[in-house]
Amino acid sequence: MPASEINRLIEMLGKLPGLGPRSARRAALHMVKRPAQLMTPLADALSSAARAISVCQVCGSVDTSDPCGICADPERDASLICVVEDVADQWAIERTGVFYGRYHVLGGTLSALDGVNPEDLNIGKLVARASEPAVSEIILATNATVAGQTTAHYIMERLALTGLKLSRLAHGVPVGSELDYLDDGTLTAALKSRRSL
Amino acid sequence: MPASEINRLIEMLGKLPGLGPRSARRAALHMVKRPAQLMTPLADALSSAARAISVCQVCGSVDTSDPCGICADPERDASLICVVEDVADQWAIERTGVFYGRYHVLGGTLSALDGVNPEDLNIGKLVARASEPAVSEIILATNATVAGQTTAHYIMERLALTGLKLSRLAHGVPVGSELDYLDDGTLTAALKSRRSL
Repeated sequence: MPASEINRLIEMLGKLPGLGPRSARRAALHMVKRPAQLMTPLADALSSAARAISVCQVCGSVDTSDPCGICADPERDASLICVVEDVADQWAIERTGVFYGRYHVLGGTLSALDGVNPEDLNIGKLVARASEPAVSEIILATNATVAGQTTAHYIMERLALTGLKLSRLAHGVPVGSELDYLDDGTLTAALKSRRSL
Repeated sequence: MPASEINRLIEMLGKLPGLGPRSARRAALHMVKRPAQLMTPLADALSSAARAISVCQVCGSVDTSDPCGICADPERDASLICVVEDVADQWAIERTGVFYGRYHVLGGTLSALDGVNPEDLNIGKLVARASEPAVSEIILATNATVAGQTTAHYIMERLALTGLKLSRLAHGVPVGSELDYLDDGTLTAALKSRRSL
């Protein structure tokens, strides 16, 4: 029977996404056997990250400085704003290494069911940023889900009068995938957006 | 692109069992958005667990006291020692709530391949405990794997001359399972150990 301190740790770990009660117990046990090598360093990493983290007042992303590294970087193209649902999406695009513009993190998607209205998302600041003279194109890179596309559509309408170029990510066959395993929607989109060689 | 503090956190989380680089990133991101509610409490839970944890000098288990809660508990039957591979196995047996004896945690299994010899496991102390007059039965509750059974067999030989009652967990059909999905080995064991009604 784990002691109260270990039980509390298991409970805390179980709140992380991807860790159920069973895997939280396994993770705790793994650390319990090497407190100095695993627990203390992780505790330190958590504390220093918690101290360092702040939300960027410009784009809504999370970083250790405000404005965040990307918003503060004069090398990043200020005319391009890529609108994403979440910080995770921003990180995913950054990992490609091909986007040199800036970001705007919405913090979720519109959802009538969950009561998420436009004012609950970081949309007001996006509309304000869109009116800055430096901005010329807004890429709506929300997820290709119903919620993501609804949100993109709403933002598109809000920005329609700005005269900015609005774009979205291309839909199509994922690189490396087999047609036979693709869903009909993706294949339809890929056919419709076919490019001449 | 996550900042260095966040990257370090992702790296540390990725060392936990069950969390790969992708899920570690997801867990970090989940916490990054709520530093005060999630990161700081987890950091505190880790630090206090790391401070509190010690290895029981009697049974080799991990607890916040030494001797551990079970070894120190006069209510637990000192005549019964249940030998398990790992603290996780001890916790699993404790969760059943039907075992009222004490434990001995080996800290692994014998393995010629991995160079784990008897002196690398907590076997010496078990032999010493077995000679205590209070002890009357040793339950070998190592896993039903080749390594676990080899280790149980080795311990059985070491304890053969003590005259103590040695036992192992019953093999058979897991409660709630269907015969059709069972492996042949388990079904064979269940047949051989059938009980008359």
